[in-house]
Amino acid sequence: MTDNASSRTPRTPLTLLGTGAMGTALARAWLAAGHPVTVWNRTAARAEALAAEGAAVAATAAEAVAANRLVVACLLDDASLGEALEDAGLSGRDLVNLTTGTPAEGRTRAAWAEARGARFVDAGIMAVPPMIGQPGSGAYVFYSGSSELFEEHRDTLAVPADTRFVGTDPGFAALHDVALLSGMYGMFAGISHAFALVRGEDIPLNEFAPLLEGWLHAMAASVPQTAERLSTGDYTTGVVSNLAMQVQAGQRTLLRTADEQGVSRELLEPVMRLMRRRLDDGHGDEDTTGLVDLLTARPATT
Amino acid sequence: MTDNASSRTPRTPLTLLGTGAMGTALARAWLAAGHPVTVWNRTAARAEALAAEGAAVAATAAEAVAANRLVVACLLDDASLGEALEDAGLSGRDLVNLTTGTPAEGRTRAAWAEARGARFVDAGIMAVPPMIGQPGSGAYVFYSGSSELFEEHRDTLAVPADTRFVGTDPGFAALHDVALLSGMYGMFAGISHAFALVRGEDIPLNEFAPLLEGWLHAMAASVPQTAERLSTGDYTTGVVSNLAMQVQAGQRTLLRTADEQGVSRELLEPVMRLMRRRLDDGHGDEDTTGLVDLLTARPATT
Ligand SMILES: NC(=O)c1ccc[n+]([C@@H]2O[C@H](COP(=O)([O-])OP(=O)(O)OC[C@H]3O[C@@H](n4cnc5c(N)ncnc54)[C@H](OP(=O)(O)O)[C@@H]3O)[C@@H](O)[C@H]2O)c1
Ligand SMILES: NC(=O)c1ccc[n+]([C@@H]2O[C@H](COP(=O)([O-])OP(=O)(O)OC[C@H]3O[C@@H](n4cnc5c(N)ncnc54)[C@H](OP(=O)(O)O)[C@@H]3O)[C@@H](O)[C@H]2O)c1
Repeated sequence: MTDNASSRTPRTPLTLLGTGAMGTALARAWLAAGHPVTVWNRTAARAEALAAEGAAVAATAAEAVAANRLVVACLLDDASLGEALEDAGLSGRDLVNLTTGTPAEGRTRAAWAEARGARFVDAGIMAVPPMIGQPGSGAYVFYSGSSELFEEHRDTLAVPADTRFVGTDPGFAALHDVALLSGMYGMFAGISHAFALVRGEDIPLNEFAPLLEGWLHAMAASVPQTAERLSTGDYTTGVVSNLAMQVQAGQRTLLRTADEQGVSRELLEPVMRLMRRRLDDGHGDEDTTGLVDLLTARPATT
Repeated sequence: MTDNASSRTPRTPLTLLGTGAMGTALARAWLAAGHPVTVWNRTAARAEALAAEGAAVAATAAEAVAANRLVVACLLDDASLGEALEDAGLSGRDLVNLTTGTPAEGRTRAAWAEARGARFVDAGIMAVPPMIGQPGSGAYVFYSGSSELFEEHRDTLAVPADTRFVGTDPGFAALHDVALLSGMYGMFAGISHAFALVRGEDIPLNEFAPLLEGWLHAMAASVPQTAERLSTGDYTTGVVSNLAMQVQAGQRTLLRTADEQGVSRELLEPVMRLMRRRLDDGHGDEDTTGLVDLLTARPATT
């Protein structure tokens, strides 16, 4: 098959439920790639622009679901998905849920969809709408659940953003999504505290920023080692800056500097407190990996 | 001057107070580069290894200070520096303080040293001992205070690690040091929470780690923009994922997922709470830059 012929291969038609900010970006990416797209949105006016761009607009969610085997949902939350699909005939459908939710919601929704005769994958979008349909933007989407569904629609799903299938457990896409976002908010907390310390001083923030960014990059390199330590259970071998030193020498300086600069301790204190607890538990020779143990009530099974 | 002649230029002799883990690494780097080094350590036994490697060992701190114009201190904390230098004659000395401290300690120590006739720079070491004297390790040291001292000894100071002079305010080296470390602990808190969420599930941590690391890298790219927003005071232009959406759609999912996975909310909740406060204050159209304002009691002057 020549490239030309390949470019004329008919694209899989699909239905998209929800044309909010993200849904609209997704619809545009599929339309641009030549996929026939049927859209539905609770507030019909919000789907009008897409009609002008070539999408078919369905009057009801049930009608939209009836139009195509592949049905993608990108609604506000899991509850809105349940509402929207209440009267839809899902038998024989391939439902891809790009609506953000928790792992438990993904699992419950998978069982619900399967009971109605549909195959199901849950998804977590690691991007904002302007990154969708932009190769090289770094955008990607976690998928988990039915590997048959995923394999069959892999190329279609790859149109708006890169795909990462993370397992047949339908909760794993949401779990990966939330884990990365939680890591990010921790980093944002640290960044906010750092800027709060230096602003108001005669320090050019545009010179400070690359120092902070570079330091975070360098320190994020510890992530694979933390994974390795958690897997082996060895939190001490090769530790160069142990918890005892970090707590005894470092914490006082960090907390006092916050006080000196008039910066609230509220974002810094919780991690400092956890480090002290781990030290008090007799783990002064470890690095910070043991904090993970303190955060989980149940015993680790991995 | 040929390269050969240059390599025979006599190296500046210096005194190093404190041969703990960091002091020993520093001494070795200077000795390896051909600098005559006089060392002193409160516990004399801890300096013995360096004597065998060519260092002169002084019996008292005062004697060590008398031996050279350039005096580098790397002791536990500011209090130990004051104790060690109590009887030393500092007049005409160039004192470089690599001991970790707060900005206020740096400023007070600078005034103290100047009152005794010494020039002074404070410093913050962004490295662990194994990175010292290893070009390409990424190690560097913040310096601030007397720019005359720094310029005169720049080449000598660059031997153990790269140098970054961040201003004549002797508090700025410590402030940069603490700001970067605080940012790092925020990131470590996020990383710990992320690992706590996924461990115990059937998710290979060595596959999860590069996803988390890559995401943190990508999201750290927001740091220069946060600096720009803080400088201009414009927290809203071009925001693609605003606070209202992050709080209303995202927080519930993040906090519920923590609960589902049996992970304590203690590291995540404080930043979530601050985001809600900023939203409640009527800033739902901003990104997260406004958290910096909430952390600082005093009005920003930059
Ligand atoms: N935007 C991002 O940056 C981003 C990034 C990653 C993931 N996501 C996820 O993508 C999903 C959609 O986000 P978005 O940015 O497109 O949000 P949005 O612009 O607020 O759109 C929300 C969509 O959900 C619909 N909806 C809300 N409640 C409904 C209900 N009870 N029944 C039926 N439809 C309902 C809305 O319909 P109406 O028009 O009728 O209100 C609209 O189509 C969310 O789960 C979000 O977490 C978004
Ligand atoms: N190690 C790191 O990863 C690292 C990284 C960045 C910055 N730093 C900073 O470097 C400095 C030294 O750290 P280190 O790792 O070398 O610590 P260390 O191995 O514990 O050594 C501490 C040094 O301080 C001396 N000391 C303590 N109390 C004293 C006192 N009252 N009077 C005189 N000397 C006293 C100790 O002498 P004795 O041998 O007699 O106890 C020893 O020489 C600290 O400020 C630390 O924060 C360290």
